[in-house]
Amino acid sequence: VSGQVSQEELPPGPEQDTGASGHGEDQEAYAAQIRAQARELARGCAQVIPESGLEQKLRTAWQERRPLRVKLGIDPSGSDLTLGHAVVLRKLRQFQDHGHVAVLIVGDFTGQIGDPTGRTQTRNVLTTEQTRHNAETYMEQAHKILLRDRLELHYNSRWLESKTLADVLVTSRSLTVARLLERDDFARRYRENLPITLMEFMYPMLQGMDSVAIDADIELGGTDQTYNNLVGRTLQKDAGKEPQIVMTLPLLRGTDGAEKMGKSLGNWISLNDTPDDQYGKILSLSDPILPHYAELCCAWTNAQLDDFTGLSGRNPMEAKRAVARRVVELYHGTDEAKQAEERFDARFRRRELPTNLPEFAVPPAGQPVDIVDVLLAAGLVTSKGEARRLLASGGIRLDGHKLSADSGPFDQEAIAGRVLQRGKLRAVRLVSGR
Amino acid sequence: VSGQVSQEELPPGPEQDTGASGHGEDQEAYAAQIRAQARELARGCAQVIPESGLEQKLRTAWQERRPLRVKLGIDPSGSDLTLGHAVVLRKLRQFQDHGHVAVLIVGDFTGQIGDPTGRTQTRNVLTTEQTRHNAETYMEQAHKILLRDRLELHYNSRWLESKTLADVLVTSRSLTVARLLERDDFARRYRENLPITLMEFMYPMLQGMDSVAIDADIELGGTDQTYNNLVGRTLQKDAGKEPQIVMTLPLLRGTDGAEKMGKSLGNWISLNDTPDDQYGKILSLSDPILPHYAELCCAWTNAQLDDFTGLSGRNPMEAKRAVARRVVELYHGTDEAKQAEERFDARFRRRELPTNLPEFAVPPAGQPVDIVDVLLAAGLVTSKGEARRLLASGGIRLDGHKLSADSGPFDQEAIAGRVLQRGKLRAVRLVSGR
Repeated sequence: VSGQVSQEELPPGPEQDTGASGHGEDQEAYAAQIRAQARELARGCAQVIPESGLEQKLRTAWQERRPLRVKLGIDPSGSDLTLGHAVVLRKLRQFQDHGHVAVLIVGDFTGQIGDPTGRTQTRNVLTTEQTRHNAETYMEQAHKILLRDRLELHYNSRWLESKTLADVLVTSRSLTVARLLERDDFARRYRENLPITLMEFMYPMLQGMDSVAIDADIELGGTDQTYNNLVGRTLQKDAGKEPQIVMTLPLLRGTDGAEKMGKSLGNWISLNDTPDDQYGKILSLSDPILPHYAELCCAWTNAQLDDFTGLSGRNPMEAKRAVARRVVELYHGTDEAKQAEERFDARFRRRELPTNLPEFAVPPAGQPVDIVDVLLAAGLVTSKGEARRLLASGGIRLDGHKLSADSGPFDQEAIAGRVLQRGKLRAVRLVSGR
Repeated sequence: VSGQVSQEELPPGPEQDTGASGHGEDQEAYAAQIRAQARELARGCAQVIPESGLEQKLRTAWQERRPLRVKLGIDPSGSDLTLGHAVVLRKLRQFQDHGHVAVLIVGDFTGQIGDPTGRTQTRNVLTTEQTRHNAETYMEQAHKILLRDRLELHYNSRWLESKTLADVLVTSRSLTVARLLERDDFARRYRENLPITLMEFMYPMLQGMDSVAIDADIELGGTDQTYNNLVGRTLQKDAGKEPQIVMTLPLLRGTDGAEKMGKSLGNWISLNDTPDDQYGKILSLSDPILPHYAELCCAWTNAQLDDFTGLSGRNPMEAKRAVARRVVELYHGTDEAKQAEERFDARFRRRELPTNLPEFAVPPAGQPVDIVDVLLAAGLVTSKGEARRLLASGGIRLDGHKLSADSGPFDQEAIAGRVLQRGKLRAVRLVSGR
């Protein structure tokens, strides 16, 4: 999966378009263009380190008539991508749109060594095949956002496999224990007497080695990656190379308003979620967190964000619907977004159920779901007998349609995103369990 | 430099001497013998970890009819050995005397990478030739204590050179940052905000890898090495091997009574010091520190130590002279010890000069020493003119003999250990400068 960069789409170099080289006005026009590009690319970032570095890099690219190489490390454990991952991927896409190259790094090397928290001799926790498969799964989802051109995918085992102990020692001279311990998660774990293995302590160095190996001009990441990515700068300098610029994006907060969207927290929205799930989850967001999603998940221009803010003031519910429509549109297209909204209205608005229904996760796809079990587990009934009596008397509805005693079993696909309701007032929203 | 172990000198195994194997009385006799050996070998140690481990190891050696492999890491920077080094070397010799093998490890691998405190690109700070040369210098001195048989000398580059990054990561899973930071010097530097490089942080692991590579049964070291040597236990266990026993010896305090004898502190006594220097430095020790030297530097039995203690009570000066004689005897022989004492008496006791004269270091061997310069530099005169006038008038003595204006130039060898005296009351003791 390695993209070709088409020469025509590159930011034009000085001799390419100016005709008479050194022509003052054109030079100035380019300088202004670069300043504008830097401003646009920095928009929404939490940090750009060093601050003036991005503009300098763009100038270098223009002078050398080459695209910038923008690095992003990706997780080889093969999980679903969420709107949280999308924040950084959208920034990467923005660089692609300006003619630069996205360089994705799969950290397969450490994946193959194994998880340091498991002390057993579990080497090769991820086989090469698993890592490739997981990377493909990642890319399938990432292509909802990234261009297929101007894209490189590298496995870091390619250069890390041949590193020796001597290489490690020479490199590690430039890093200090105190600086490593300042990294947020290390600092917290050290303070709380939770073990940090020496292996984990070397991970930032390995990530820095990746930047040296692929000649990164810029590295993107969440704000939790700032330290790791600064190590890349240090090691590039040591190697006599131009250090990369570190650009961090804010971490997207979870649907529960918690600090970070994460799979372990059960507060995520996946890129692969159904239109109904995505729409419903956004509608369930609390109002104060909505601007945060509008800014990080909607890929809106400044003007569009201003419109959203105006709408929020006049009609908060309409503003929330706009964000929900936009997110579904980005991952499923305009038609699906419209239909998801209509289905939602059919279920909630016209039946006047609250939009922030409790959620209940139904078993994974492939397992048949007995609606009696769901009613009991979701707390809508207190016994299976009660569930059967209510089903028989027409007191249970799925998306407004009465169920009977012999309804189901259902597959997850068939019921996720729908509302299971007892009588007029008690209901849960079924979501996909994993 | 690798010694052959003669089979006859090994501790006899169970079948070798018992005749009828399983014979109860002989078994008991061996058990008693092993207990006694363990007690003797543990004598003077600060720690034996685990406490019961030494006896168990001796039992294993006896059962397997093999000598124990007793590891000591040595410094490849090629310095003079002091009485401080001798403390551990004497313990190693004791193991040799019991038929076990001394395994010396030269840490040439990290020496060749370079000092982590120097941030410049100073790779290969020590070349292979330098390291070999330094190791030879070390061994020349160590042979004043160690047997030439039952001795192995290894360069750790032999096994560390082929280690890969993957090996390092797998090994480093077993070590935690918190435990590493508990090591005395790391703890102090971290607390004082002094940099610890990640490279240094990996050194204990490398030393542990050495123990795995040479199958150490026991590792010796000063009490400042406890943590490093415990890492060896961890890594041997990880490698499915029997973990080594860690035995630490107290650090010898310097002649100034400071915490540790060290070259940078100027408070050392070298194995290579002249008999007069050694004798004089011991006589200059303060009384409270003398028992410490008697215990760690004299290789005395318990009975001899008791004699020393008794003598200290009756005649402290005679006790000090006994320690001084004993040290010179150990490194230069009985005759030299006697002569050094006689020369000392001639200089100090009969002339009634104080024994704790200030010291003045004369230039290194090979450089001619002008006595006028020495007088001025040592503060015995205030100008070269005064020095020349005093020499001409017979006012300057070397070991009691008048010098004249045309005395010298001297070589370091000729004057180190002697007393340079102006008049009756002002004098310095000349010592070898380096």
